[in-house]
Amino acid sequence: MSPATNALHANFDVDYVITYRFHDTPKAEAATGFQNLVQALARVGLAIEVRNGENCSLLVFVKVASDERLNNAIYRSRVKDWLYGVRAAQPDRETQNSLTSQPLTEAERYRTVHHMITSPREEGGAGITVKHGQWKNVESIFPLHDHAFNNEWMKKWATMTFIKVEDLDDIRNRFGEKIAYYFAFTQSYFAFLLFPAAFGFSSWVLLGHFSGVYAVVNGLWAVTFVEYWKRQEVDLGVRWGVKGVGAIQEKRREFQHEKEVKDPVTGETVQVFPATKRLGRQLLQLPFAILASLALGTIIATCFGIEIFLSEVYNGPFKSYLVFLPTVLLTGLVPTITTILTGIATRLNNFENWETTEAYDSAMTQKIFILNFITSYLPIFLTAFVYLPFGSLIVPYLDIFQLTARPFAENEKQLTTPQAGFVVNPSRLRKQVIYFTVTAQIVNFVMETALPYVQRRVFRKYKEIKTGRAAKKGATPNVAANDIPEEAEFLARVRNEAELPVYDVSSDLREMVVQFGYLSLFSVVWPLTPISFLVNDWFELRSDAFKICLEMQRPTPYRADSIGPWLDSLGFLTWMGSIISAALVYMFSNDGLGPDGTPADIKGWALLLTIFFSEHIYLAVRLGVRLAISKIDSPGMQKERAERFMVRKRYFEESFGEDAMELPPPMDREKITRATLEEEARQSSLKSTGPSDGFWLRQRSWEESAKIGAGLIEKMAPTETKKQQ
Amino acid sequence: MSPATNALHANFDVDYVITYRFHDTPKAEAATGFQNLVQALARVGLAIEVRNGENCSLLVFVKVASDERLNNAIYRSRVKDWLYGVRAAQPDRETQNSLTSQPLTEAERYRTVHHMITSPREEGGAGITVKHGQWKNVESIFPLHDHAFNNEWMKKWATMTFIKVEDLDDIRNRFGEKIAYYFAFTQSYFAFLLFPAAFGFSSWVLLGHFSGVYAVVNGLWAVTFVEYWKRQEVDLGVRWGVKGVGAIQEKRREFQHEKEVKDPVTGETVQVFPATKRLGRQLLQLPFAILASLALGTIIATCFGIEIFLSEVYNGPFKSYLVFLPTVLLTGLVPTITTILTGIATRLNNFENWETTEAYDSAMTQKIFILNFITSYLPIFLTAFVYLPFGSLIVPYLDIFQLTARPFAENEKQLTTPQAGFVVNPSRLRKQVIYFTVTAQIVNFVMETALPYVQRRVFRKYKEIKTGRAAKKGATPNVAANDIPEEAEFLARVRNEAELPVYDVSSDLREMVVQFGYLSLFSVVWPLTPISFLVNDWFELRSDAFKICLEMQRPTPYRADSIGPWLDSLGFLTWMGSIISAALVYMFSNDGLGPDGTPADIKGWALLLTIFFSEHIYLAVRLGVRLAISKIDSPGMQKERAERFMVRKRYFEESFGEDAMELPPPMDREKITRATLEEEARQSSLKSTGPSDGFWLRQRSWEESAKIGAGLIEKMAPTETKKQQ
Repeated sequence: MSPATNALHANFDVDYVITYRFHDTPKAEAATGFQNLVQALARVGLAIEVRNGENCSLLVFVKVASDERLNNAIYRSRVKDWLYGVRAAQPDRETQNSLTSQPLTEAERYRTVHHMITSPREEGGAGITVKHGQWKNVESIFPLHDHAFNNEWMKKWATMTFIKVEDLDDIRNRFGEKIAYYFAFTQSYFAFLLFPAAFGFSSWVLLGHFSGVYAVVNGLWAVTFVEYWKRQEVDLGVRWGVKGVGAIQEKRREFQHEKEVKDPVTGETVQVFPATKRLGRQLLQLPFAILASLALGTIIATCFGIEIFLSEVYNGPFKSYLVFLPTVLLTGLVPTITTILTGIATRLNNFENWETTEAYDSAMTQKIFILNFITSYLPIFLTAFVYLPFGSLIVPYLDIFQLTARPFAENEKQLTTPQAGFVVNPSRLRKQVIYFTVTAQIVNFVMETALPYVQRRVFRKYKEIKTGRAAKKGATPNVAANDIPEEAEFLARVRNEAELPVYDVSSDLREMVVQFGYLSLFSVVWPLTPISFLVNDWFELRSDAFKICLEMQRPTPYRADSIGPWLDSLGFLTWMGSIISAALVYMFSNDGLGPDGTPADIKGWALLLTIFFSEHIYLAVRLGVRLAISKIDSPGMQKERAERFMVRKRYFEESFGEDAMELPPPMDREKITRATLEEEARQSSLKSTGPSDGFWLRQRSWEESAKIGAGLIEKMAPTETKKQQ
Repeated sequence: MSPATNALHANFDVDYVITYRFHDTPKAEAATGFQNLVQALARVGLAIEVRNGENCSLLVFVKVASDERLNNAIYRSRVKDWLYGVRAAQPDRETQNSLTSQPLTEAERYRTVHHMITSPREEGGAGITVKHGQWKNVESIFPLHDHAFNNEWMKKWATMTFIKVEDLDDIRNRFGEKIAYYFAFTQSYFAFLLFPAAFGFSSWVLLGHFSGVYAVVNGLWAVTFVEYWKRQEVDLGVRWGVKGVGAIQEKRREFQHEKEVKDPVTGETVQVFPATKRLGRQLLQLPFAILASLALGTIIATCFGIEIFLSEVYNGPFKSYLVFLPTVLLTGLVPTITTILTGIATRLNNFENWETTEAYDSAMTQKIFILNFITSYLPIFLTAFVYLPFGSLIVPYLDIFQLTARPFAENEKQLTTPQAGFVVNPSRLRKQVIYFTVTAQIVNFVMETALPYVQRRVFRKYKEIKTGRAAKKGATPNVAANDIPEEAEFLARVRNEAELPVYDVSSDLREMVVQFGYLSLFSVVWPLTPISFLVNDWFELRSDAFKICLEMQRPTPYRADSIGPWLDSLGFLTWMGSIISAALVYMFSNDGLGPDGTPADIKGWALLLTIFFSEHIYLAVRLGVRLAISKIDSPGMQKERAERFMVRKRYFEESFGEDAMELPPPMDREKITRATLEEEARQSSLKSTGPSDGFWLRQRSWEESAKIGAGLIEKMAPTETKKQQ
C-alpha cells in the first residue's frame, strides 16, 4: 500500500523533518542528546538521514521504514476511534482489508507518523516533545510542503468567488481537520455576509444610521449564523469522520499530578490533580480579568481623553500632527501591555495545571478572548456610553491632558475648554467604527501577510549576499558547502522551511471572531460594515492560504470536530449584540441624536426597557432558531443515520436469525370438550407441586383459549344475553 | 434461568394480564377479535389462559412459554442497547453467558415481555396496541402487583426519614427507571429543601418578608439544585445502566406519513413527514397559548376582581359568606376550562404528528406546562404586579361587579367604592402565597390520595351489596360464580386490579415542578414556604408509593434516562425566579412597602435595573455552578470511566500484541568511515530508479546517523569551533 502522495515523491519520501539545534549546548552533551534522539526514532521503526542545517542545527529526516508498522499504527488508531464512538463501524479485523476499504489520506498518514514520533513510550511512540525536558534541543518537527499542490491551491482559489465543500475536503486531506474547520468557518461566514452586506447597503441608503430595523435584522442574522454554524460543524464532522473526536484527549506532558491513586475498579494507577484545587486556582482569573481591564482600560481611556482634548479642546499650532499622538501611544502601548498580559495569562493557565491539551487550549482561548474583547471593543464603548452621553460633563476635566500639548501651545487659551457651549462631536462614534472596521482591517492585513513576506524576501537576499561575501573570505563554512549536487536544491528548500514559524490556526480564528463582534455589536452605527468585512474576508481566505503555503512550516495535521471554545465566544458576542445594539438604537436614533433631540436626554427606564425586551427577544429567537435548525434534516445527519443503520443491520444479520413466528403445533386430539380438559387440568394439578401448574394447564393451546373465550363472550355479552333470557 | 421473583410465584407465574372488553361490540365480531388476539399472543411464544372479568370483559393471562425465547428477546435488547451506546460492553456472544454475567431484574423481564406483546410484527412482536385500530377492544395490558413487596415497601418508607439510593434501586428493579426517576427527583428535592427550610425560618424570624438576602440565597439554592439534579440524573443513568436510552426511540403507531421515501444509502423505505410542515403546525401553539392565557386569564382576573370588590368595597350583609363566591367560581370554572384546553392541546399535539412516543410526550408536556403556569401563578402575578401597585387606580372600576352582591345589599352605598382614601390591602399578597403553598397543597393531597381511596372502598362495598342482592334474586350471573376454589381468591384480586386506573408518573412530576415554581418565584413573599413544602413532600413521597401499590394497576416498567422535558421547566422557573424575586424585593421591601414608603411609588429605571442585574447575576452564577459541578467527580462518572476503560483494555488485549520496541539489528561491518559510506550510497543511487533511494541509503543505520550527527555538531558548534580556528 502506497498512499499516492506527490508530497512524498517530490520530497525524497521524507515524512518528517526534525530540527535539532545545539547552539547553546556543550558539544559532548549535544552529541549524546542527538544519539538518544536518533535511537528513539529508530526504536519506533523510522529510517533516518541526517544533514546539517542553518545556525548550528541538524536536520533529521525520517520516514517510516516498514509499511507494516505504519499500517498497524493506522489500524490501531482506527480501532481506537471506533471504541470512542468516532467511527460507527468496527474496522475490518484484517489490517490490510481495513486500509483497502477506507484508503488513507495524506493527513492521516502524517498524523499517524507524528503520533509515532511524539506519543509517549508507554503508548508505543518515541516520546519526543518539542523544546521540553529531555528533548529541549528538538526545535521543531514538521512535514515538508508539497509545492505542486500549494501552487495549484493558490491559483485555484485566487480565481474563484465561493469555496466549495470539495475544496475544503482537499484542505482537510492535506492539512487535517483543525485547519479545514477554520477555512470552512470563514467560508460560511463569508457566504453569510452577503445578506447583511446587501441589507446594510439598502439600510444605509434608505434608513440611515442607528436604524432599529437594521439592528433587528442584523441580530436575527447573527443568531441564525451562529446556530447554522453549530449544525454545519456537526455536519462537517460527519463528512470528515471526526464527529466526537474531541473525546479522544491526549495527556499534556507538562501536567503535574498531586498524588497517584489506584483506581478501585480498573486497578490502574491514575495520576490525579484535585478538581477542587484547580477550581480554586481558576478563581485567580477574576483578579486577572480586573487587572487586565484596569491596565488596558486606563491606557485606552487615557489615550481617548488625550485625543478628545487635542481634537476638540486644543486649538493651537501643530494640532493636525498632535492629534496623531494618542494613536501612536495606543499603537505602542497596547501591544506591549497585551504581550505582558498574555504572558501572565499563559502562566496562569500553566498554573491551572490542565490534564489534557484540549482543556489547556480551551482555557487559554478564554483568557485570550477577554484580552481581545477589551482591546477591540472598549474604545467604541467609551465613545458610545461615556463620551457621547456625558461628554459635556467630562470634557472640562480633560485639562489634565494639557501637558501633552503645552510645549506647542502659544497661550493658555488654546489649552482650556471653552467655558460654555462645548458640544460633543456626534460623528466621532461613526468615525471610530469606520476606523476599526475598515482601516484597522487593512492595516492588519498588511501587517499579517504582506509585511512578513517582504521581510523574509529581504532577509533571504541579505543572507545570500552575506554568505557570498563570507565564502569569498573563506571564513565560516557554508552549511550547503558539502551538499551533494542532486540533493542541493532539496536541502536548500528544507533549510528554508526549517526557519519558518509554526502556523497557529487559533490566531486566525480569533481574528474572525473579533471581526464578527464588530458586526454584532456596532454595525448599527455604520451599516456598511458588512460590505467592508465581505471584501476583507475574500482576501483573508486567500491570504491565509498564501500564508500557510509560503510563510509557515507545513502544519502537522491535527484532528478537531469543532472550532472549539471560539464557538462560545461567538454566542456571547451575539448575546451582547442584542443588548448593545438596542442601547445604541435607543440612544442615537434620529441620526445620532436621542429621541428627545439630544443624546444627553435619555430616560433610564426607557433605555433599560429597550434592552430588556431586546435581550429577551434575542433569547426567544435563539431558542426558536435552534429548535427549527435541529428539526431540519441535513446531509451530515443523513449520512450518520445511514452509517449507524448499516452497522446495526449488519450486526443483527450476523448475530441472530429471526425467531420463529409460527403458531404452536395444533393438538393431536380431534375432539376436546371443555369439561374433559378442565378435569384433566384438575387431575394434573393434584399431581404437580405448585398451584400455578394447575392454573396454566386448564387451557392447553391457543385454540382452546379462543374457544373458551368465545364461549364466555357468548355467555356474558350484554344486550344479546338479555334478549335470550 | 428463573429470575427469582415473588411477584411471579404469588401470581401463578402470570407475566401480564390483558383485559379484553366487549360490551359495545357484536358477539361474533368480539369472538373473532378475541381469536385474533389469542393467536397473535401464541405466535410470539406466550402461554395463554382465559377467565372472565367484570362488566363484559375477559381476562387473558399470559406467561412466556419457553425460557429460550425470552432469553433471546432479552439478549437482543441488550445487544441493541450496546449498539446504541447505552451499554459500554458488548454482551457476551453466548446468550446464556450474557444473562448469567448480568442477571435479570424483575423490571427487565416485565419490560421484555411487554415488548413482545406490543412491538410491531416486523420487529417480532405481537403488535398489540391498547384501544387502537384492530385492537380497540384491548383495554389494558398490565402486570400483577407483588403484594408482599408492596406491603414491605410501604411499611419501610413510612418509618424512615430519608430514602436511600438503595431504596431507589429497589423501585427501579420493580417498576422501571421512569418511575424510579420520579422518586429519585422528589427525594433529592426533599433533601435539598432542608436548607431553605432552615434558612427561610431564620430569615422569617430575623429579616421579615421581602428580604433581599433571602431572595439571593433562595435563587442560589434553586440554581444549585437544578444543576445538581442534572448531574444526579446522569449519575443515576450510569448506575442503572440507562444512560443514553433516550436515543432508542419507538415509533408512534398513530404517526401518519406524508410520503414514502427510499433512503438512497440504506435502500430502506422510510416513512416521512416533512419537518417544515410540522414546524408550521407547531406555530399553532402561539394562538393556543394566547387563547389559553385569555380564557384562563379572564376567569382568574374576573374572580380576582369580584373578590376584591366583595372583600374590600362591599360592606353590606352576608359579606362573610359572599367572599367565598369567587373561590367557588374559580374552583368550578378553572378545572372545566383546563380540561377543555387540555383537550385542545391534545388535539394540537396529535395534529403535530410526532414520529416517536418520546417526541410526542415531550411536546405534550410543554403544552401542559403552559396551562399549569397560568393557572398556578397568574393569581399571584395579578396581586403583586397589578393589584398592589395599581390597586387604587383600578378599584373604582370594580363597580361592574356590583351585580354579584346586589341581591344582598341594603343600599347603594354598600356597593360603591369610597370616594377617597381607598387603601390596598398589603397583606393580600402574603395571604395568597400562604393559600397556594399550604392550603392548596393540603387540599390537593386529600383530593389525590385520600379521596380516591375512600371512594374506591365505598364503591367496592356498594358493589358487594348489589352483587349479593342480585345473587339472591338469581338475576345476572356473578362473574366469580364459576371460579374454581383454588383460583377464586387470585381471580378476585386480578379483577380488582383490572378495574384500577393506569398510573401516570408525569402528573406527579408536574405537581413537583409546579411546587418548585412557587418556591423559586414567590417564596420571598413568605419565607416559611420551604418548610411547608418540606412537610408536604415527606407525605407526598409516601402517599405516591401508597397510590402505586393500592390505587393503580401495577405500572409496566419503562426505561428513561431523565425526568424529560420537566427539566427544562425547572430551569425556566429558576430563571423567572431571578426576575420575579428581584422585582418583588424592590417593590415591597420595607415589609410590604416600596423603598419610598408606599408600594405605588416605584421608579421604573430602578426596578428595571434591579431586574437586569438580578437576571444577569443569575445567568453568571448558573454558568459558574454548571462549570463547577462538571468538574467535580462523582460515583456515576467514575463507574462510566471504569466501564469504558475495561472495554478498551479488553479489546486492545484481544486484538493486538505490542509492537516490538527493539532497535534495528546493528550493522555487520566493524569499521565504517563516512567517505566509504557516502561513496557506496552514491553508487547505489546511480543504479536505482528514483532519486529518493539514493537519499535514504547514505546512512545505513541509526548508529551511522548518530555518528555523522556527532561529526556535524563537532564541526558546526559555535564557540568551541571558533576557539579551534
